[in-house]
Amino acid sequence: MKLYDKKGEILNTLSLEKVYDAKEVLSSIARKTELIHSDFLSIKNNIFLKSENLQLTGSFKLRGAYYKISQLAPWQKEKGIIACSAGNHAQGVALAAKKNNIKATIFIPATAPLSKVEATRAHGAEIRLIDGVYDDAYQAAVDFQKETDGIFIHPFNDMDVIAGQATIALEIYEQLKDVDAIVVPIGGGGLISGVAATIKQIKPDCLVYGVQAERADSMFVSIKEHKRVELKCVNTFADGTAVKLPGDITFEFCENYVDEIITVSEDEIASAVLSLMEKEKLVSEGSGALPVAAVMFDKIPIKDKNVVCIVSGGNIDVNILSRVINRALLKTGRISNLTVELLDKPGQLKEVSSIIAQYGANVIRVRHNQGGEGTDINDCYLKISMETRNFEHFEKIKNALIASGYNILSTVQ
Amino acid sequence: MKLYDKKGEILNTLSLEKVYDAKEVLSSIARKTELIHSDFLSIKNNIFLKSENLQLTGSFKLRGAYYKISQLAPWQKEKGIIACSAGNHAQGVALAAKKNNIKATIFIPATAPLSKVEATRAHGAEIRLIDGVYDDAYQAAVDFQKETDGIFIHPFNDMDVIAGQATIALEIYEQLKDVDAIVVPIGGGGLISGVAATIKQIKPDCLVYGVQAERADSMFVSIKEHKRVELKCVNTFADGTAVKLPGDITFEFCENYVDEIITVSEDEIASAVLSLMEKEKLVSEGSGALPVAAVMFDKIPIKDKNVVCIVSGGNIDVNILSRVINRALLKTGRISNLTVELLDKPGQLKEVSSIIAQYGANVIRVRHNQGGEGTDINDCYLKISMETRNFEHFEKIKNALIASGYNILSTVQ
Repeated sequence: MKLYDKKGEILNTLSLEKVYDAKEVLSSIARKTELIHSDFLSIKNNIFLKSENLQLTGSFKLRGAYYKISQLAPWQKEKGIIACSAGNHAQGVALAAKKNNIKATIFIPATAPLSKVEATRAHGAEIRLIDGVYDDAYQAAVDFQKETDGIFIHPFNDMDVIAGQATIALEIYEQLKDVDAIVVPIGGGGLISGVAATIKQIKPDCLVYGVQAERADSMFVSIKEHKRVELKCVNTFADGTAVKLPGDITFEFCENYVDEIITVSEDEIASAVLSLMEKEKLVSEGSGALPVAAVMFDKIPIKDKNVVCIVSGGNIDVNILSRVINRALLKTGRISNLTVELLDKPGQLKEVSSIIAQYGANVIRVRHNQGGEGTDINDCYLKISMETRNFEHFEKIKNALIASGYNILSTVQ
Repeated sequence: MKLYDKKGEILNTLSLEKVYDAKEVLSSIARKTELIHSDFLSIKNNIFLKSENLQLTGSFKLRGAYYKISQLAPWQKEKGIIACSAGNHAQGVALAAKKNNIKATIFIPATAPLSKVEATRAHGAEIRLIDGVYDDAYQAAVDFQKETDGIFIHPFNDMDVIAGQATIALEIYEQLKDVDAIVVPIGGGGLISGVAATIKQIKPDCLVYGVQAERADSMFVSIKEHKRVELKCVNTFADGTAVKLPGDITFEFCENYVDEIITVSEDEIASAVLSLMEKEKLVSEGSGALPVAAVMFDKIPIKDKNVVCIVSGGNIDVNILSRVINRALLKTGRISNLTVELLDKPGQLKEVSSIIAQYGANVIRVRHNQGGEGTDINDCYLKISMETRNFEHFEKIKNALIASGYNILSTVQ
């Protein structure tokens, strides 16, 4: 039980008592989300999914926000609460405020997806759309806080928020006493701080792995450099974890309780989102799929263990989902594109189609261009998108076309 | 308790004893899927989702297939089993056979989506891809059965299969004693037969509604005409319920136990699939979303009741999902298209963009055509796709463009 910091001093840690209190407070509000065994992912380890994407508001954020609000004094509640977020924290705070019957004003950058704004509004919060990016909205929220003396709810760097998220560790332990490792997404670090500090007290030998997107790896870099490092830019479709600077509290928790932090690429995240949809019928957002990406791409250095991946949220914009699906299908060889040069004479389209059909691929889009810009007047090419089984399948088709005398101009995967 | 048929004769019904036996047999195999409350759907009634899309193999079909196989004599198991299906039944039978350690040969029409073929193969079954449509694959399966004397597992018209599906009713009752109504998708009728016959014995006042796609409404028509009617063609993206002719057993069960059958349109099904993804983070296939479509479009004639929708499966091809998303976004005014006539002079694109931005819509695709086919040489038009909040929002943008002097050539929803 690492309850001391690296210098041997007693850490201002999270007491189990507080986490149990949060559990009690949340019992009538938050769902105890199911722990779902994943046959598909259980190759090297026995993998379970803690389905916080099925939590109310579509993410775990409700837990921390609700517990935080429950701890406010009556006069504080009267002032109303303030938050700044384009995503899950906004929805969590909005619903938590509604359930507590208090006023919430939420600042959202105007560039946020419409669906997230609407979902937050639907929970009854007052929305202030602020021109610009997150930082602009944050500044507006700070100004508003000074004006109104309302209570600002931090998305992660707050002991009550951390205690709320920590209830997930209690549930995991209840659902799977033999848990050997928990894999947790990291944005600001609130979720992993609560989960790690709690499970290390209940079951000290349980490992805790954090996962970040390569393109938003502020905690990874900070831990490596033993000090909080602010990234210049974070640009990942795992937008729920796109945080430039870890909190000081969460940084300390990660230093003391987290065994290792792992990073994954955008394509790995997209594949994980797609697999969760196809194999487990669960919608997850990029951030929610980080732990699954780490498992799928074999980045967790253990074997034959019971591993829980926290699927932290499912609030992905469906337009983005559409793009993720296409990207992931391309990257796994299940959609393949090729451009074939044709002689401009009848029957060529038919012949190419027959070859493709013969190999069992399914054509989904064809573009037949003749004498366009950048081609000679007699040139003609056929751009084909098709469903294929995998890269090998595609190679066979390509080779069959070449064997029949066709010139393949390009293939894009 | 309607245990007699319309002529007053005792019906060869499903005994509760048999359903409890099926439950026992399935206890170590099938998941007891969660009953999830849906805040979003609970407007007129209190709506719960029985999440059989989270069942192993992605649909309830495992239950019937496994119980059926468990009831075979040893010599029958030795012969191996045979099934014909392009979808959920194939996967259910394949996994059930694997768990029973017996051989399964599954006939699949070659036109089936690759992903379903691969999923069935992954469960260890021998796949025979048959050129043509379902009927051709069925004929091949029948021929193979005669040759090998193997056991053909019918997807719905079989008392053991029905008993397996019926275990869902026991679980629903365990999870929600106060259930007032259950809404069930109907394809061949196996699921609703088991659920209705069981719940009417346990809780006779519980209503049972069946839902079919308008374009595959064989049971709806059959019940209306009091005899089994074969449809000439079934063409719906709810492919799991695209059955031309109900079974004789399932028809009799529906006549006797089902309170009403409702039909829904393709667009209603698409909206339901999208809503389940966005609001509940659940991936459902068209068939699995039929009950939710019926609830969303207010087709269930009750109020203030506890209603369970069985989300029967989640095996939707991701390519189709991509199309469903786009279609549903269009139909709900969240993606809007318009074509604007432009004067072919500089600055026009900028002006139109500014007007759209000013109203907070997000442009996702622009096509700028100049002097194409079907336009005069000086004509120029701009085709814009944008994310909008709803139809009203779109109307505002359109009117603003008109007010600025632009000619709107077409809008496609």
